[in-house]
Amino acid sequence: MLNEPIVVAPLNPIQYTRIVEAALIEDLGRAGDLTTDAIVDADIRVETAIAARTAGRVAGLDVALHAFTSLSDAFVISIHRDDGSDVAAGTILARISGPARPLLSAERTALNFLGRLCGIATATRNIVALVADIGAKIICTRKTTPGLRVLEKYAVRVGGGLNHRFGLDDAMLIKDNHIAAAGGLRIAVERAQARLGHLVKIQVEVDTLAQLEELLTLRVDAVLLDNMSVEDMTQAVHMVDRRMIIEASGGITATSARAIAETGVDVISVGWLTHSVASLNVGLDFLGPSPGA
Amino acid sequence: MLNEPIVVAPLNPIQYTRIVEAALIEDLGRAGDLTTDAIVDADIRVETAIAARTAGRVAGLDVALHAFTSLSDAFVISIHRDDGSDVAAGTILARISGPARPLLSAERTALNFLGRLCGIATATRNIVALVADIGAKIICTRKTTPGLRVLEKYAVRVGGGLNHRFGLDDAMLIKDNHIAAAGGLRIAVERAQARLGHLVKIQVEVDTLAQLEELLTLRVDAVLLDNMSVEDMTQAVHMVDRRMIIEASGGITATSARAIAETGVDVISVGWLTHSVASLNVGLDFLGPSPGA
Amino acid sequence: MLNEPIVVAPLNPIQYTRIVEAALIEDLGRAGDLTTDAIVDADIRVETAIAARTAGRVAGLDVALHAFTSLSDAFVISIHRDDGSDVAAGTILARISGPARPLLSAERTALNFLGRLCGIATATRNIVALVADIGAKIICTRKTTPGLRVLEKYAVRVGGGLNHRFGLDDAMLIKDNHIAAAGGLRIAVERAQARLGHLVKIQVEVDTLAQLEELLTLRVDAVLLDNMSVEDMTQAVHMVDRRMIIEASGGITATSARAIAETGVDVISVGWLTHSVASLNVGLDFLGPSPGA
Amino acid sequence: MLNEPIVVAPLNPIQYTRIVEAALIEDLGRAGDLTTDAIVDADIRVETAIAARTAGRVAGLDVALHAFTSLSDAFVISIHRDDGSDVAAGTILARISGPARPLLSAERTALNFLGRLCGIATATRNIVALVADIGAKIICTRKTTPGLRVLEKYAVRVGGGLNHRFGLDDAMLIKDNHIAAAGGLRIAVERAQARLGHLVKIQVEVDTLAQLEELLTLRVDAVLLDNMSVEDMTQAVHMVDRRMIIEASGGITATSARAIAETGVDVISVGWLTHSVASLNVGLDFLGPSPGA
Amino acid sequence: MLNEPIVVAPLNPIQYTRIVEAALIEDLGRAGDLTTDAIVDADIRVETAIAARTAGRVAGLDVALHAFTSLSDAFVISIHRDDGSDVAAGTILARISGPARPLLSAERTALNFLGRLCGIATATRNIVALVADIGAKIICTRKTTPGLRVLEKYAVRVGGGLNHRFGLDDAMLIKDNHIAAAGGLRIAVERAQARLGHLVKIQVEVDTLAQLEELLTLRVDAVLLDNMSVEDMTQAVHMVDRRMIIEASGGITATSARAIAETGVDVISVGWLTHSVASLNVGLDFLGPSPGA
Amino acid sequence: MLNEPIVVAPLNPIQYTRIVEAALIEDLGRAGDLTTDAIVDADIRVETAIAARTAGRVAGLDVALHAFTSLSDAFVISIHRDDGSDVAAGTILARISGPARPLLSAERTALNFLGRLCGIATATRNIVALVADIGAKIICTRKTTPGLRVLEKYAVRVGGGLNHRFGLDDAMLIKDNHIAAAGGLRIAVERAQARLGHLVKIQVEVDTLAQLEELLTLRVDAVLLDNMSVEDMTQAVHMVDRRMIIEASGGITATSARAIAETGVDVISVGWLTHSVASLNVGLDFLGPSPGA
Repeated sequence: MLNEPIVVAPLNPIQYTRIVEAALIEDLGRAGDLTTDAIVDADIRVETAIAARTAGRVAGLDVALHAFTSLSDAFVISIHRDDGSDVAAGTILARISGPARPLLSAERTALNFLGRLCGIATATRNIVALVADIGAKIICTRKTTPGLRVLEKYAVRVGGGLNHRFGLDDAMLIKDNHIAAAGGLRIAVERAQARLGHLVKIQVEVDTLAQLEELLTLRVDAVLLDNMSVEDMTQAVHMVDRRMIIEASGGITATSARAIAETGVDVISVGWLTHSVASLNVGLDFLGPSPGA
Repeated sequence: MLNEPIVVAPLNPIQYTRIVEAALIEDLGRAGDLTTDAIVDADIRVETAIAARTAGRVAGLDVALHAFTSLSDAFVISIHRDDGSDVAAGTILARISGPARPLLSAERTALNFLGRLCGIATATRNIVALVADIGAKIICTRKTTPGLRVLEKYAVRVGGGLNHRFGLDDAMLIKDNHIAAAGGLRIAVERAQARLGHLVKIQVEVDTLAQLEELLTLRVDAVLLDNMSVEDMTQAVHMVDRRMIIEASGGITATSARAIAETGVDVISVGWLTHSVASLNVGLDFLGPSPGA
Repeated sequence: MLNEPIVVAPLNPIQYTRIVEAALIEDLGRAGDLTTDAIVDADIRVETAIAARTAGRVAGLDVALHAFTSLSDAFVISIHRDDGSDVAAGTILARISGPARPLLSAERTALNFLGRLCGIATATRNIVALVADIGAKIICTRKTTPGLRVLEKYAVRVGGGLNHRFGLDDAMLIKDNHIAAAGGLRIAVERAQARLGHLVKIQVEVDTLAQLEELLTLRVDAVLLDNMSVEDMTQAVHMVDRRMIIEASGGITATSARAIAETGVDVISVGWLTHSVASLNVGLDFLGPSPGA
Repeated sequence: MLNEPIVVAPLNPIQYTRIVEAALIEDLGRAGDLTTDAIVDADIRVETAIAARTAGRVAGLDVALHAFTSLSDAFVISIHRDDGSDVAAGTILARISGPARPLLSAERTALNFLGRLCGIATATRNIVALVADIGAKIICTRKTTPGLRVLEKYAVRVGGGLNHRFGLDDAMLIKDNHIAAAGGLRIAVERAQARLGHLVKIQVEVDTLAQLEELLTLRVDAVLLDNMSVEDMTQAVHMVDRRMIIEASGGITATSARAIAETGVDVISVGWLTHSVASLNVGLDFLGPSPGA
Repeated sequence: MLNEPIVVAPLNPIQYTRIVEAALIEDLGRAGDLTTDAIVDADIRVETAIAARTAGRVAGLDVALHAFTSLSDAFVISIHRDDGSDVAAGTILARISGPARPLLSAERTALNFLGRLCGIATATRNIVALVADIGAKIICTRKTTPGLRVLEKYAVRVGGGLNHRFGLDDAMLIKDNHIAAAGGLRIAVERAQARLGHLVKIQVEVDTLAQLEELLTLRVDAVLLDNMSVEDMTQAVHMVDRRMIIEASGGITATSARAIAETGVDVISVGWLTHSVASLNVGLDFLGPSPGA
Repeated sequence: MLNEPIVVAPLNPIQYTRIVEAALIEDLGRAGDLTTDAIVDADIRVETAIAARTAGRVAGLDVALHAFTSLSDAFVISIHRDDGSDVAAGTILARISGPARPLLSAERTALNFLGRLCGIATATRNIVALVADIGAKIICTRKTTPGLRVLEKYAVRVGGGLNHRFGLDDAMLIKDNHIAAAGGLRIAVERAQARLGHLVKIQVEVDTLAQLEELLTLRVDAVLLDNMSVEDMTQAVHMVDRRMIIEASGGITATSARAIAETGVDVISVGWLTHSVASLNVGLDFLGPSPGA
């Protein structure tokens, strides 16, 4: 048995540098940072700290720090709390010392990334904690912010969740509209199987136990129970009897998660982790002139 | 006096088509929509409706619909409720009929945009309504989602809010860190004035009434009262006496907004409208085979 | 049982238009088509045919035709043989009539795509035919041309093959170097399982029957037999006894494919279908002045 | 007289870094390298070698190595055989030591570039060798892989060949379809000459000796003999008598190349060097833990 | 002999649409056209004319008009004077009627392109006219505006000039610094010849008649006489005696051009046509409400 | 009072690196620098100087030097005269020593940027000097080169000018066509005020003193006097009496600038500073072999 802490592998820089640089350009616009350029002398160097204003789980430090290093290679950065750390309000996550101008110009972009990713990781951690002892896993959905899917799914992993599909091409997920367009659940599944690559899984969404009954006569990898009652979910778990992975889905909240987990489903998908989550409050504090200044 | 309803000008397509197409590519990945391609025949045509599942204000229909039209030019689309409409749960916003394949492949991308933008417009509308009779205006901040600033600021306008700066190059906003780096409020303002374009405004952030007092000896366009108490804000309004625009800022919620508005400030900036808002629940319903099918 | 011909779903235009337009720009360079611009009058209209010079299977017509339509919307195009058709030498695949200038300027770009994709589909079809009665499926690899993976994998499907992973993020494929870096097959598999999304499959590469024996004590979806002899493969099929999908891999040629299929493996992966295949010879013939000219 | 070995100038990094990074992104997809990230610890460092599995000529090492250095700046790389070297099967081309994760993630992308470019250089070298003593030069065509023309033409140079046009804007090449559209060979050439920049050459394709006869009354820089018999080519060389460069073109193979060269043509163009060539078999071998690990 | 008016082939849309759209985005910024969006009702339609405010030669109408059509497909456009026309001050070049909003938003971008390209065409026409009867041709250089080379070289052609190299890869131009780096004129030329593609020309820059004398013992296509006196140029023309194309270069103005042409040089290159030319004054006039409004 | 020299803040690298690299690719094309690659040995290192051939003000050195450093990180660069310096003809601006190949390949691109930006800075400085003692400020317009607005507006600042709007979204500028489309000056201004963000200024263009009279009854930040006579401008200054910023605009030249400044207007906008300015003549001189060679 594997007996080691699972550390989430960091994102590959090639996956986020373009996004961060585009966000910087979005904020700098054409004329650049008018305020800083007019007010702050080029040779001012400062010592600053990125701090959490409220408690939460850290995620996205590398991403956020790239905003600073994109504008200058003169920063000295020390990371105090790695991604995955749980921190109290007021905790310093990283110190950055260097030229004040690019530091001020990158501040908002960096914090926009960091606040969002910490917010997702924190919310994920909180709901994971509610069901962890039962064994159900929390997963996210494709209801992510356009353009930020890679980052947001990473934040879910840092929060202790797992990722559902990254896109339409990861696996087959046969939903109600597919079944309607195909003309029935059986024909839909058979067509899927006939065109299936050998490393692609099939999951089917069902709304009722009758549909589940029909599905059990076919061979798929997973079922998605869509907006079922806890009673029906309990029944569904019995019916499936470990022959498929079972996902519960549909409006699941912190209040309802534990009861759902107790039905015995394997994974619980939670859309609001990425589409309606609050950013964590993070800020940049000036500590004083930079030691080397 | 202007006596006409203010309709928010729609976004220019050149400002959102690239973002939508990038989001589609993000979702389609390399292999495309495995499920739909395997299950749904090429000649199936369907009639569908985009509907609000909960009540709110519509924003972003053009943006969302571009996801469909990017994948096929065979759709017939009729818009039932324009951006800016307030709708009840269950309201149909638009009907789309056409080939089932691209319709299913674009569904999630379209809804991700629409849900987010309606969510922002709805939240903005709600807080605007709380202070509208007093005269204070609600504005958003630069705490937007990286890559989506243009869209999110548009949704705020549709919600009845106004926009603060779009970026660092719109206007000068002198904040505490700038003052620290410059060595004082007066020197900061004087430097700003010396380098100022003739169509650029200057706003200065103050934390205390003492700072405000100093600021009043200088000539700037606006002041930002950062995290002040309602009492201090009331005093500040007296001190300023209409010589500058006054913005209240810092952790303002639906609960605190009215009291703040009553102090007489001109604008109230609300960061969570863009960084921590809930998406509106919107969905795509299959109504049946397409009439022309 | 599914009893219908399987038609490969066409590529989504959003997946190939950028590639085709980039290729046109690559060929037009800065100064454009010097020869055509100097020699051919703007009002010359011609009737042309895209024809196969040698026999093969058609793939990529939509992709190739986009080269023409990118340069002018005045073309009238009729497709005579759809993707997936098997054609004899000399067969006309499509007719294009319209202005001669953009037709000549796009010719080479269009044919470069078409020749390559038909070449891949044809080679795939040929090797699929060798093993089709046995039941083994032919699949491609990630040894594709940089930048063209989506197109080349499509051509394999048109040829009757299936696709292996589209990238490093589709599924887990644990290879010898991973096992070495992890410190052993068992620890590698256990770590993979501990971090696994519920729709992700695991495949493991083995070089020997001893490794296979160890693998059978773990729970994975598929095994890759790397460069094994036909005898060992036969033995492996017995050992696995349908508990996993079995892929044969490593230097498989038209000569060796049938014997390998007869061992009972499920899928046979063939790298040269995409990295070393000959383009099909396709050309553009001038049939005369365009009817409408 | 020039009496020095001709070394092919390396590509400019600005010409290949974007292509390599796009290929990495194509392979990493959204979720990144699932297998490596789950299995390989972040602090594992390894010593590896890129080796040729079969004999051939090296081309594209800089391009391939950029795949590794794009993902990490912690690699120590030593090149053992430069581009242009002829190597036996088993020869180590370069050693790379460093962190195992990015090394494994970049492996396939790097090898896809290297295999293709070595394949082209090797095939070019082989056919160049067949005609080198006669003096004819081997050149490639515009039948290159979309998106990779710059790289493939470089590989041809490394193989000892020369490059024909890089695109439609390098020179004028008047082909049969141009002549048809212009209404005759003479009018086509005269129009070309009238619009000619002073550093642009004109070449004309002819199918028959009669066409060549007409061409000789005009003043162009080169002629392309399209699919002519060896006898006609011999006659053409006599007719031209060094007044133009003569290119032989059309289905030329290793078998036919020498006889064609012996006719006295100046250059022989070979399309399959870029559109139908086999990649060289190259691989990455783990040698053990990295010395510095 | 060719006896027809030479009409310059229009640019290929794929060569300018991206540039124009990028320029629109540059001007619209994030918030779009604040003024028009606030002031002009969505249903206002107007009739407008693009007019030349001063006399000149038209170039770039297609390019400029693309700015309008990028923002709306509801415009009705009629072109009154094609590229290449010589027009008096006040001449209407095109009429555009349609929605006022996108028309106003695209106006400046369209005029910026049109003014620059007409300016180049006009200046070229004027200097061409000074030397046309003598036979010398006017050519431009690589001293073009970064990003606009394709457009500016087109405008030179419309003005009646020819184009020198489009870039470093069109032809070889051996300049003084190359000769210095190579160690001498002869070694430089020999190296160039040894690596030469069969459709690539060689030109060599010389500063003195002594250098020209040495060059005449080698075989190159063209010589560039750099900053020579009219006397030396006259002598150079005698020395060359039609064995090479002769280009005069270096600070040539409208005043000096005719005397230089009379020396008998073939082409005269003029850098300021693209790096220091005045835009033509063009404007957009509102003619009244649109007929269809 | 502020009593320090105003140094223009340098551009942010993220604002110019992409533009410079695109320009390099524009010049290198597909085949790269044919001449240098063929002639100059890879190990040649040289010492060079960038020098002004005519007197002027330096602007754009960082931008220009990025062309060199994009192609090689082996250059040693020393800047002798910073942006903003006024230099005599022959002054060395920077020394660059390093490998000859990339130095020659980047030369033209670097000089094209530098010449243009120095040209703008020089022309701006010259006209600023004519009016500096009077107090009027010189500003540029949106008549900039497509794609280069950020760079050209920077050069204007280096020349001592200020910047007008960077785009349509900086501020509201209500022009004659807006007034026509809105139906009158008053309605246009009232609509603008009703939709105004609190940091956005409004400027209105007027052609006559009557219009100015009407405008004075409204509350806007600035007025643009379009093509008015000096007499009318003088009268306008009296009428406005410091209640708005006054901009003079329309065909202002070095000859007319001083008289206009003396009318008492605040800013004078000059379009030709960016649309019709002459590049400064700058060059690269080979000083000899590099010390380290």
